[in-house]
Amino acid sequence: MSAYILDGKALAQKLQSELKDEVDRLRARTGKTPRFMNIAIGQDLCAGSYGKSQKRAAEFIGIDYQFSNLSSHLSQKELIDHIHFLNEDANVHGIMLHKPVPSQIDFQQAVNAITPKKDIEGMNIANLGRLMLGTTSIIPATPAAAMALLLSSGVNIAGKEAVLIGRSEIVGKPMMMLLLEKNATVTVCHSATSKAGCLADHVKRAEILVVAMGKPGSVKGEWVREGAIVIDIGINPVDGKITGDVEFDAAAGRAAFITPVPGGVGPVTAVMLMKNGIETFKIQLEHP
Amino acid sequence: MSAYILDGKALAQKLQSELKDEVDRLRARTGKTPRFMNIAIGQDLCAGSYGKSQKRAAEFIGIDYQFSNLSSHLSQKELIDHIHFLNEDANVHGIMLHKPVPSQIDFQQAVNAITPKKDIEGMNIANLGRLMLGTTSIIPATPAAAMALLLSSGVNIAGKEAVLIGRSEIVGKPMMMLLLEKNATVTVCHSATSKAGCLADHVKRAEILVVAMGKPGSVKGEWVREGAIVIDIGINPVDGKITGDVEFDAAAGRAAFITPVPGGVGPVTAVMLMKNGIETFKIQLEHP
Repeated sequence: MSAYILDGKALAQKLQSELKDEVDRLRARTGKTPRFMNIAIGQDLCAGSYGKSQKRAAEFIGIDYQFSNLSSHLSQKELIDHIHFLNEDANVHGIMLHKPVPSQIDFQQAVNAITPKKDIEGMNIANLGRLMLGTTSIIPATPAAAMALLLSSGVNIAGKEAVLIGRSEIVGKPMMMLLLEKNATVTVCHSATSKAGCLADHVKRAEILVVAMGKPGSVKGEWVREGAIVIDIGINPVDGKITGDVEFDAAAGRAAFITPVPGGVGPVTAVMLMKNGIETFKIQLEHP
Repeated sequence: MSAYILDGKALAQKLQSELKDEVDRLRARTGKTPRFMNIAIGQDLCAGSYGKSQKRAAEFIGIDYQFSNLSSHLSQKELIDHIHFLNEDANVHGIMLHKPVPSQIDFQQAVNAITPKKDIEGMNIANLGRLMLGTTSIIPATPAAAMALLLSSGVNIAGKEAVLIGRSEIVGKPMMMLLLEKNATVTVCHSATSKAGCLADHVKRAEILVVAMGKPGSVKGEWVREGAIVIDIGINPVDGKITGDVEFDAAAGRAAFITPVPGGVGPVTAVMLMKNGIETFKIQLEHP
């Protein structure tokens, strides 16, 4: 079997066009433009390639995307005051705090200060709680992208054996919730699973395999079940190139569907952040 | 093999004595007594056996446990106003909303109105979000009880294969977080797993089996892995008796440890609710 490639760039373009249409309609109806603020501490996001590609995507969709480049000497209190100011600013519809932050900053405490209705990363505790209850439209962007690619395969997920490698707050745990919501049976593996020597066995029985380990080539191609759907969330720089967590060529020889790295989850993630921002914009249009 | 019985009544008594000592110390230091308010709508909780056993446990520990018996015709707004009143009352340290509620009441919306620092059931979205991040001391009582019984076995959980049956917000999903925090590999099964015919296979490989299906005898004793730890959260009335989700006798012949029903998770759950209330009391002593 040679896997069908789940093309993240193509999906990102399709989703981006849909979002542009939605923003056009919202602007025609309300006269308003969604405006996001990305807070960066001690780094100039406008200058780097990350900032430029974010700006380009936002411009295409019709979002006014701004950076708030703050001093590396900023205190926690100053950051929280700034966030409260943005919370109150009716012209700002989405707020995110860029990682990494300097050591004097408590990242999660700051994110919890972002009002849930402007939290475009979906990492405020209230939005995480809603995610657990299945009652939020703001889903952390990386798992949202992984799920969009998985659904783009057209395979019915209900009752399937899904195996997730990685249990982080930003990827693994939200992904678990999304897979359960779609009625998959979900197994979460992590470092202690590897240590116990059980990782390969779980991968071998996975009909859906979602990998977010952050270790290049750590899932062997020969472990992949024939006909599986493989979503590789890993983004690892190796010898000047970007590579995933899964041995791509060997895995693609066994899987039915697989995401490439680069060009898989990455491009869709950037669009999902914009999608969250449009959700927060809509929430604020309904509840000003 | 004949399983060692994880005795919920004995553990509950031990925990209850520890909590009494803690409340005694807190009272000696601060002169204050923890006071909880259980809001019941359209039912007289003082009269029933539930209310009486709650009261008895609270009195033993030294908690002032009160019921707020409200009319069945209460509106959502009136309920929220009452909750806001209790949130502001410095003499109330813990609040819970008793289920079931009449159809005009949105339970989760009301629970979200309880200030997180008085939410003794741990079901406010902010506390659920903190549970996902692993940063809360308020754990929903039933999974907290299941975990306490599991830990009472003395078995090291790290790297073990844990299988959880049930994915509810109040039991399954919080239990998943607790098991991951202890470094188990966690599989969550549910109705779609049964429908796909995969439930028995998952049970057969479980070193730790936690069952919250709500269907008497739905986990066959013969499925249980030799030497497993079995935690049965089911409480099902059958022919005037209470029975669990697991076929107890057959399972006990194979497991290393098993909880009985009744006398397992149930009695510990009641104590865990009191423990949460003492946590909220302490939070309010530190941050009045």
